[in-house]
Amino acid sequence: MDLVFEIATTMVSQLQKPTLAFLIGGMVLAAMGSKFAVPEPVYKFIVILLLLKVGIGAGISVREADLAELMVPALGAAFVGIAIVLVGAVTLARMRGVAHVDGMATAGLFGAVSASTLAAGMAVLDEEGISYEGFIGALYPFMDVSALVTAILLAKLAEQRRAVVAPIGIQGGTIAMGGGPAFDLSLVKTILKDTFQSPAISALLLGLALGIFARPDSVYASFYEPLFRGLLSVLMLVMGMEAWSRLSELRGVAHAYILYGLLAPVVHGLLGFAVGLAAHHLTGFSAGGTVLLAIMAASSSDISGPPTMRGALPKANPSAYVGTSTGLGTPVAILSIPLFMALADHFIGG
Amino acid sequence: MDLVFEIATTMVSQLQKPTLAFLIGGMVLAAMGSKFAVPEPVYKFIVILLLLKVGIGAGISVREADLAELMVPALGAAFVGIAIVLVGAVTLARMRGVAHVDGMATAGLFGAVSASTLAAGMAVLDEEGISYEGFIGALYPFMDVSALVTAILLAKLAEQRRAVVAPIGIQGGTIAMGGGPAFDLSLVKTILKDTFQSPAISALLLGLALGIFARPDSVYASFYEPLFRGLLSVLMLVMGMEAWSRLSELRGVAHAYILYGLLAPVVHGLLGFAVGLAAHHLTGFSAGGTVLLAIMAASSSDISGPPTMRGALPKANPSAYVGTSTGLGTPVAILSIPLFMALADHFIGG
Amino acid sequence: MDLVFEIATTMVSQLQKPTLAFLIGGMVLAAMGSKFAVPEPVYKFIVILLLLKVGIGAGISVREADLAELMVPALGAAFVGIAIVLVGAVTLARMRGVAHVDGMATAGLFGAVSASTLAAGMAVLDEEGISYEGFIGALYPFMDVSALVTAILLAKLAEQRRAVVAPIGIQGGTIAMGGGPAFDLSLVKTILKDTFQSPAISALLLGLALGIFARPDSVYASFYEPLFRGLLSVLMLVMGMEAWSRLSELRGVAHAYILYGLLAPVVHGLLGFAVGLAAHHLTGFSAGGTVLLAIMAASSSDISGPPTMRGALPKANPSAYVGTSTGLGTPVAILSIPLFMALADHFIGG
Repeated sequence: MDLVFEIATTMVSQLQKPTLAFLIGGMVLAAMGSKFAVPEPVYKFIVILLLLKVGIGAGISVREADLAELMVPALGAAFVGIAIVLVGAVTLARMRGVAHVDGMATAGLFGAVSASTLAAGMAVLDEEGISYEGFIGALYPFMDVSALVTAILLAKLAEQRRAVVAPIGIQGGTIAMGGGPAFDLSLVKTILKDTFQSPAISALLLGLALGIFARPDSVYASFYEPLFRGLLSVLMLVMGMEAWSRLSELRGVAHAYILYGLLAPVVHGLLGFAVGLAAHHLTGFSAGGTVLLAIMAASSSDISGPPTMRGALPKANPSAYVGTSTGLGTPVAILSIPLFMALADHFIGG
Repeated sequence: MDLVFEIATTMVSQLQKPTLAFLIGGMVLAAMGSKFAVPEPVYKFIVILLLLKVGIGAGISVREADLAELMVPALGAAFVGIAIVLVGAVTLARMRGVAHVDGMATAGLFGAVSASTLAAGMAVLDEEGISYEGFIGALYPFMDVSALVTAILLAKLAEQRRAVVAPIGIQGGTIAMGGGPAFDLSLVKTILKDTFQSPAISALLLGLALGIFARPDSVYASFYEPLFRGLLSVLMLVMGMEAWSRLSELRGVAHAYILYGLLAPVVHGLLGFAVGLAAHHLTGFSAGGTVLLAIMAASSSDISGPPTMRGALPKANPSAYVGTSTGLGTPVAILSIPLFMALADHFIGG
Repeated sequence: MDLVFEIATTMVSQLQKPTLAFLIGGMVLAAMGSKFAVPEPVYKFIVILLLLKVGIGAGISVREADLAELMVPALGAAFVGIAIVLVGAVTLARMRGVAHVDGMATAGLFGAVSASTLAAGMAVLDEEGISYEGFIGALYPFMDVSALVTAILLAKLAEQRRAVVAPIGIQGGTIAMGGGPAFDLSLVKTILKDTFQSPAISALLLGLALGIFARPDSVYASFYEPLFRGLLSVLMLVMGMEAWSRLSELRGVAHAYILYGLLAPVVHGLLGFAVGLAAHHLTGFSAGGTVLLAIMAASSSDISGPPTMRGALPKANPSAYVGTSTGLGTPVAILSIPLFMALADHFIGG
């Protein structure tokens, strides 16, 4: 009862904080039919700056971090990414009215990470003065890449199995295949290549590499860090508007997606929280880090994930997976941030 | 004589100040035929940030303001917006060579407000250390919306009256109409809806709402406020170039527009100044606030107004109303800022 | 031996500094086939801000500078610009497989100046705490304009000479010509007009004029100066990616271009360094100023030069001149910055 009250209090007070308020503001604008819009090239640039900021910041911390200390949460993040997709495979992908490939694409996006949501979580923790490991941004690719690869791999394997059963199928657009294990390896390679070449992951890894191998500390402190929260506020507006306008796309798809979009971020977040809590007991992973791991798990990829899916699974229906992740997954994940903070406060403490 | 000297001195010293100097610099660039250009998406984004800044700043002040104190200048602003359009209806719209609908569209834009001009005024006052009510930005929609609605309404009514006289007219593109008063109400509703959904008004109202209901003070102080003057300097360049290139459009239209474009900003500004002066005596409205009310009245809508007019009055000639407001109205209004400052200094004092 | 060691040490330590690290990071991204991209409008705007920053900063310094002190390096800069083109005319333009007009266009770009490279040089010196004359930015147009005008003039004269020899040639797209000296004068005028109207030169001159005649010091200090290094880091990323992707264009052209692209920046930089050293002994021109003059000479125009060349010399092959200057000239010039710093340290001292 005490915990419920604590969560409710945190949520109400957070709704007034800039990060969540801008998200809700964007939703209200879209609901009002406003013609307000942030131009696409500017939006893309803001995302790039946020990813570079998160990457460089993490890189600077990794440079000084104990690698063993980093390994436990990194493996945890990869585990969470895979687990989310497996959960999606046995729930969403088997529901009535859900095509298997659509369900896997959606589960993949929900396992992947949204840089903006992670950035929103960092901003909220910063506002509250809650500290976290500087290397958190370095966990992003572990969760993101393992989720995308697992989802695409499972979808392709299922497709292949069906193709064997019904050999004269519509096969256009899929990667040419040999037989058995050799095929899998080249498929994994292709997926990994596409994922690491995607704008988001490569911007993040570039930032990480610059943070680790160069000395960008001064430009980080004078440019990337100070602009961070302001640019994030603009991004939250755009994400709120985008979420609202994507909601309508869900009308055409099965109700299962709506259920998944509303529940999955919370369930995934709790899974991430549990893994963070385990890392806390094992290696002293911080309360703030645990909250951010939960937020990463709760978030669904809104920028780099969809084009990766479109490229890898051309038969999947974007209205289903983009509508569910951008229309429901992202706002639900951001609005759940106070929940994870309250849990951390309760289970770990300041 | 003393006043004239004071005005001249203020104007000369202001021409060197960044805000006006960048405007003139832009005009010189355009006059030289420079291919310099600020890309459209960036320009739009700068306007968005300025509107959010003005809105959030006003919202934060409104939160703490005495609503009664706000109401007098707000009603004054609405009155000025309506009065400017009525003055235009009996002067410009009746002049030789001016189609009634073109004259009303132009008067509507001159009654509406330019966020950039208002921002320029704020920057100039800040530079001079002249204080003003924080809620000034909240007056913007009162003047803007009442001017646009009045102008469109009068133009539509006149059109309807002519349509009754000559029933077999070219009616394509106008809103379907019933008869009498019911028509007016739905027309007003449509105009209000279009106006509140326009990018500028909705960005401003969003900022206001965020300032009032959320607590964006920290992101305002760390991002919107510090970037304000720099982005404004870029905007002044663009507006100077745009003004110069629009001037040529005026060649094709009646001379009445040139006369109106040169005189109206000053006359409207004096009207706004008089209303501000009245508010000063009634409720202690500040000297800086009076100057900004004059600047709002002098300014003409350069971003959100034109598309609203194009949508609502498709028969009006954009060369006439955009050429007059962007080519003459905006630069004359900005260059009149020192005049209003000198008047405030004379009639109200520091 | 001592000097070689000094150069090597400076180069290695500089590679970790943000400016060069971001350039190399961009090259690595492109080499990895990353889909990361900074949107074109944002890229253009960043260049505009850098040019305004360099211009305004130079203008503020020129305002307080002794004009005689400025004249010696300015004439030196113009001399270097012309000399680079003349060297190109007797080397590259006469090599096997190099069309004369292509060689002249390439030499013109290598004589012209890259604002981004100059900005990178300034950032590196700032990081090292090495001071330089504030008016350095004002030298840019002297070198840039004289190089472009010389190159285009020589190419046009050679073309005209060939046209006299073979009167029935393919002449489409060139400027209509009368005969003899009158033609030259109008040609020079056209080139000068095109150059001064180009976005880069006009942005720089606008900044200069604002710095000299207005008082933009506050907006310079609060906006242009603080954003400078961060925006430059983004620009270095873009330039690194662009350089890598342009390299492939060089496959189709003569090997002479590759040789020229690798050697010319260093040779030109040494020429600029020598002129700066002479100015140091004549008028006390600083060590930092000498380094920046060398960097300007080493740099090749990557933004404003190519469109100027395309307009003036439509028969020249862009793959040759853009490929050589952007693919090799720019990265080699930026990576040579430590060389010029080591030389200045050796020959002039702190």
